[in-house]
Amino acid sequence: MPELRKDPIVERWVVIAGDRAARPHDFHENVVSSARANCPFCAGHEHETPGELFALRAAPDAPWRVRVVPNRYPALEPQAAWSATVEHASDATLFQTMPASGAHEVIIETPRHLGCSSDLTVAELNEVLHVYRARLHFHREQARFRHAMIFKNVGAAGGASIEHAHSQLMVTPVIPTLVAEELAACAAFQRTHGRCIFCDLVERERADGARLVADHDGFTVFAPFASRLPWECWILPRRHAADFDLLRDDELGRLAVALHDTLATLESVLEPVAYNLVLHTAPFDTSCNEHYHWHIEIIPRVTKTAGFEWGSGCYVNPLPPEVAAARLREVRGGLQARRALPTAKTR
Amino acid sequence: MPELRKDPIVERWVVIAGDRAARPHDFHENVVSSARANCPFCAGHEHETPGELFALRAAPDAPWRVRVVPNRYPALEPQAAWSATVEHASDATLFQTMPASGAHEVIIETPRHLGCSSDLTVAELNEVLHVYRARLHFHREQARFRHAMIFKNVGAAGGASIEHAHSQLMVTPVIPTLVAEELAACAAFQRTHGRCIFCDLVERERADGARLVADHDGFTVFAPFASRLPWECWILPRRHAADFDLLRDDELGRLAVALHDTLATLESVLEPVAYNLVLHTAPFDTSCNEHYHWHIEIIPRVTKTAGFEWGSGCYVNPLPPEVAAARLREVRGGLQARRALPTAKTR
Repeated sequence: MPELRKDPIVERWVVIAGDRAARPHDFHENVVSSARANCPFCAGHEHETPGELFALRAAPDAPWRVRVVPNRYPALEPQAAWSATVEHASDATLFQTMPASGAHEVIIETPRHLGCSSDLTVAELNEVLHVYRARLHFHREQARFRHAMIFKNVGAAGGASIEHAHSQLMVTPVIPTLVAEELAACAAFQRTHGRCIFCDLVERERADGARLVADHDGFTVFAPFASRLPWECWILPRRHAADFDLLRDDELGRLAVALHDTLATLESVLEPVAYNLVLHTAPFDTSCNEHYHWHIEIIPRVTKTAGFEWGSGCYVNPLPPEVAAARLREVRGGLQARRALPTAKTR
Repeated sequence: MPELRKDPIVERWVVIAGDRAARPHDFHENVVSSARANCPFCAGHEHETPGELFALRAAPDAPWRVRVVPNRYPALEPQAAWSATVEHASDATLFQTMPASGAHEVIIETPRHLGCSSDLTVAELNEVLHVYRARLHFHREQARFRHAMIFKNVGAAGGASIEHAHSQLMVTPVIPTLVAEELAACAAFQRTHGRCIFCDLVERERADGARLVADHDGFTVFAPFASRLPWECWILPRRHAADFDLLRDDELGRLAVALHDTLATLESVLEPVAYNLVLHTAPFDTSCNEHYHWHIEIIPRVTKTAGFEWGSGCYVNPLPPEVAAARLREVRGGLQARRALPTAKTR
């Protein structure tokens, strides 16, 4: 049974989620399977996943277009309880544990075996975003836990174990460390300046332009000033909003355009394609509606973190974000030009 | 010229250290070179490294046994100054930069082409630790910067680009985020309990025993309670001390025994061998001598971090540290039994 443990010294939560008899050979690097015949996420293989939690269909008996199932190897479980084997550790200040209760879901983005989200059409990606909103809303309404994070792992270097386009949802009984740090910084800025720091940031990036990748209808894409890794990109809504699950349909539609464009641009630069995508949205309580601002962080995985990063919590990034943004604008321009020209095939 | 940037929202420093014309193909994954003929760290190839900063020799004209040189691709440089091209960004609260001034040194642990530190003898490893102490002491005396961290990257998955056994030293003008968090937590514990939290931790781990890997003369090795990754091990001195560079010779000698034993144990479990080692010691100012406690963290890299870790700052670890410690004790027992038996070769 998984268990949440807090580091005795710093604010760092770890989900200890192992079979206690696990052997070293269980932890070899993930290998991305591209075997379509054995893909559990493809249409026709529904029996290979745990039972469906939610799905988008044109009609009740129509085939699914987006499908949500529990993760087969969950880090957090709705019914997690105290594990008798480790309970002894929780009686002291140094060793804090709590049951790893929450949810760990997989959002299968398409019934087709596509590896890149940019192979989805914008309309399909829009439906995926509708499912993000629905699942976040469901868990906020349940209010059993404290926070929900949606993320994507793409490519072997991104930690993906299955190639078929999918996202994951992790609902946690604690506010994750990085989100808590953002919340604290946002609240402090609001107290001092009376404004949302992310709103200021977007306007500064738009005005400066050096790190801008694209300025879409309602959404701004830029390489962040202190990018941790090469090609890091953030997507921020220009309308201040803390909760992703309160977005309107027309906003989701515009986000689908911006996200599709960003992923297509990154996927044509990265070789092999490997990245993590994270959706940061407000915790379930509504106390930060004024100062928090949901956003998407895309973190390509073309370099490895090493001892300095693990020891310091700081990063060495060999690619200035201004250089990354200039190259992404150039690649994006090329893609748009190609899209505008009918190809020999379609003529 | 490298530059330090602070994330506009959270306390996270990034060294932007790139050639501004860098191209995507510069950032492919590091490949560990095992080509002895081309190894710049082997004896006889001294001309292939930047000029020697320090070396251990039996006599001034004897061959070197441990050698320290500047990193050829430094993230921080002693003479770094404001870069004119980015200075515009530093005039505002959101975009804080400072010159990436500091030092980035390579400690070549042996003139022989050995990949594993455990292939060094204990006496050789003891000399490496003497060099750690000497370089840390040098930079503390200089007092130009704020903190120095020593780390090791081993194996491709550990981010190593050169196989030959080496460590690195990074001297920074800021206290690294994770060290600052440890310092704050230690100070808070000291205020509340009047004791060092690390001293308490060691005693708790020794008393409990479930996560203990080995209890050496003066040093305790254990799998930390909230291990981030499988096989994580910490080495703590039992004598309270904040500064590694104030260790006595006899303590260094005993640490060499404990470290050699720990690395040999881990290196026989990990396949392929890949880990990061980090030495956390006090900042250069002496204000935390009472509450901080230097230590070594060894972080094997057999699993990949993915979207959840990047987005949350939390970790999912599939191997409970109690299971890891039991297996490490078992492997260690086997190694000791084998060492006790003279082999056919040596008889």
